[in-house]
Amino acid sequence: MKLKLLLSSFLLISCLAAFSQEKQSNQAAEKGLIKVSVMYPYAEGKTFNMEYYETKHMPMVAGYLGANLVKYTIEKGLASGLPNQPLPFMAIGTFYIKSLSDYQAAVAPNREAIRADFANYTNVAPIILVSEVVK
Amino acid sequence: MKLKLLLSSFLLISCLAAFSQEKQSNQAAEKGLIKVSVMYPYAEGKTFNMEYYETKHMPMVAGYLGANLVKYTIEKGLASGLPNQPLPFMAIGTFYIKSLSDYQAAVAPNREAIRADFANYTNVAPIILVSEVVK
Repeated sequence: MKLKLLLSSFLLISCLAAFSQEKQSNQAAEKGLIKVSVMYPYAEGKTFNMEYYETKHMPMVAGYLGANLVKYTIEKGLASGLPNQPLPFMAIGTFYIKSLSDYQAAVAPNREAIRADFANYTNVAPIILVSEVVK
Repeated sequence: MKLKLLLSSFLLISCLAAFSQEKQSNQAAEKGLIKVSVMYPYAEGKTFNMEYYETKHMPMVAGYLGANLVKYTIEKGLASGLPNQPLPFMAIGTFYIKSLSDYQAAVAPNREAIRADFANYTNVAPIILVSEVVK
């Protein structure tokens, strides 16, 4: 009986420790990661199909990246934050990765498939920012 | 003794349940939030002091936002992701907020202080994107 109690207490302490670690690592998890942000500028006559982008294009590209991909995000542009300015971007898709060279190696053999898929959801050429998470 | 064992088991199960919930909520926590991204374009002769931005400017603005601010991030532009293209942005600071109108109400009375601080870290005018986290 004493053994069971001891074991149970040990498991409880381990679980609490893991919980506390998980919270901390989530807060700092992104720092130091590389972001590849694919930004679709807004302009008159330009279109963007968010449904296709979210359900087909981004999962396809994410599938090429393997364990190097920590997560990816999608945002939909709503407005400029400055008065009387046009919307800067219709959408941004971002890959959070550990290694830029691994990303480039994974994308290179699939570049044509990725580019060919652009026409399925947009008629604008994206700009791409490679950045580092500082905070 | 039986009571202690029961209590200990109950605590262990509660802890495991909380751990599991925490993981799930972290994954979905950003969806639906509003992002205000302040983007500093790169151009020849333009400068950006990341140390001042990270330690003074962003904490100052974040301090105005109160409980509406879920988190803020800072990224440092490294390169364009496209060959032979210039760096699009030197830096981006992003506020993840629950309500855009609350953000605007909090920033309005402090706009002059925020603008006056720009000269302390950059000589470029930012563009600002308001977007919604889709995924």
